[in-house]
Amino acid sequence: MLGRINHIALAVPDIAAASATYRETLGAKVSAPQALPEHGVTVVFVELPNSKVELLEPLGETSPVAAFLAKNPDGGMHHICYEVADILAARDQLVAAGARVLGDGEPKIGAHGKQVLFLHPKDFFGTLIELEQV
Amino acid sequence: MLGRINHIALAVPDIAAASATYRETLGAKVSAPQALPEHGVTVVFVELPNSKVELLEPLGETSPVAAFLAKNPDGGMHHICYEVADILAARDQLVAAGARVLGDGEPKIGAHGKQVLFLHPKDFFGTLIELEQV
Repeated sequence: MLGRINHIALAVPDIAAASATYRETLGAKVSAPQALPEHGVTVVFVELPNSKVELLEPLGETSPVAAFLAKNPDGGMHHICYEVADILAARDQLVAAGARVLGDGEPKIGAHGKQVLFLHPKDFFGTLIELEQV
Repeated sequence: MLGRINHIALAVPDIAAASATYRETLGAKVSAPQALPEHGVTVVFVELPNSKVELLEPLGETSPVAAFLAKNPDGGMHHICYEVADILAARDQLVAAGARVLGDGEPKIGAHGKQVLFLHPKDFFGTLIELEQV
């Protein structure tokens, strides 16, 4: 079921500072920040040769990363996103195996304009997993 | 400086259970567990098309993941490993930029038999970064 690692998301309290660190200190190719108010985040892409890291800063009152940063004020590793060929088939197979999908269980349109869903970290050893249909 | 994402490491309290979940529930290719007593971990590789996930279970009294699991008993995302072409040049550049290398600052031989070092998560927004020379 799992395909490529689409991205690893890191929550950061200050995306301008984090972008500068990844660009200047770590010498990576870093995109301009994109505000995605419908997702409650500002995002920066760190392009690596085989995948990417996404830096996420909370945006707005109901950001999905705000609670994480309240618990981890320095920031930290937030989730890992895997590509799947058929998100509904993947979802049905996971639910049948007893895994919980966050929210109402239906895919949403994610930050890349593709269908995504998130799996409950308690069912995957504390790691928040995003699935994205490619 | 940063090259490919070599792996993302997830600490888990029970590597047999986690292996079964990644193999059976998530349908990934999962290696047999390897005990690495000199690194204080048992490791399982989850092979994805473009990179890999490493599941880490503490092994022995002085495991480097034991404190993490004491704080995160369910498990969680532990570190991200990037490949670099020249680890000493990378280290010197990072130290000159004010970043801290864990331990005595010298590369060690990591779980893949290659030179590695770890950067202080406080200098990288709460994310523990491993560099591996390839």
